[in-house]
Amino acid sequence: MGISMKGMILGIVLATMAGIAFAEFDTPEDAIRYRTAVMTVIGEHFGRLAAVVTGQAPFNENAVKHDTVVLRTMAELPWDAFMVPGSEKGKTTLKAKAMKEKDKFMAIAKEFEQASKKLAETAGSGDLKAIREQFGDIANNCKSCHTTFRNL
Amino acid sequence: MGISMKGMILGIVLATMAGIAFAEFDTPEDAIRYRTAVMTVIGEHFGRLAAVVTGQAPFNENAVKHDTVVLRTMAELPWDAFMVPGSEKGKTTLKAKAMKEKDKFMAIAKEFEQASKKLAETAGSGDLKAIREQFGDIANNCKSCHTTFRNL
Repeated sequence: MGISMKGMILGIVLATMAGIAFAEFDTPEDAIRYRTAVMTVIGEHFGRLAAVVTGQAPFNENAVKHDTVVLRTMAELPWDAFMVPGSEKGKTTLKAKAMKEKDKFMAIAKEFEQASKKLAETAGSGDLKAIREQFGDIANNCKSCHTTFRNL
Repeated sequence: MGISMKGMILGIVLATMAGIAFAEFDTPEDAIRYRTAVMTVIGEHFGRLAAVVTGQAPFNENAVKHDTVVLRTMAELPWDAFMVPGSEKGKTTLKAKAMKEKDKFMAIAKEFEQASKKLAETAGSGDLKAIREQFGDIANNCKSCHTTFRNL
């Protein structure tokens, strides 16, 4: 199906209807909204994995693989949004010092990305013990960043 | 690094700290929170793509590929969360009839998943015209579902 003018206009209308910024984060609030959404999705799938590795939920290999793939994809997304000037205020738990200590923040973020990637690879093996170990590394990484840069 | 008991306990503590439900959607509010987050992420990346296909932003092939991969991954996630009993009330724009017309809702959702998958494949080709056409199909799909099942 062709898109032509009609489709393009529809795209603009839809995006406008949904309150979508064309530029990346026109406002600090947009950045907060986006990163909060990403972290919510990460939290849900991290929680499902936590339930499996702690034995509170059965080990469904496909579900675990899926959760790790989502985690890996999401792990790349939110970090720049945390650095948008002004977004340390308002509806956020970000500590203001995160922006002042950008290099440290980004280093932990990069570790999280890499650990999530490794977890997705490990999940492909179907080895629960290995998955549990790799999950432990990620849990430590989460804690490290949250303790340092998040208001609880 | 091993996880052992210490790591497992840490995982539980972290998940609890973050308010994560171990089961999938213990409450309707959890389901609303999750699906809203997913749609927010979809909306952001859809908006970035809309800007490119309408010529409001330059065509950066890698950025477009990335956006479509995120879209494809996210497109699989939220649908069950829309069907959680009780989640048609509260902080949501979901029309109650979505649950009554589950088959119709899920059929449109499935179309969105497939169209997003196709868009990610198309983006791999680097052909902006083809990307624009496939994006038009998705925009129509969005509109179809929002018009029918979303309170604006």
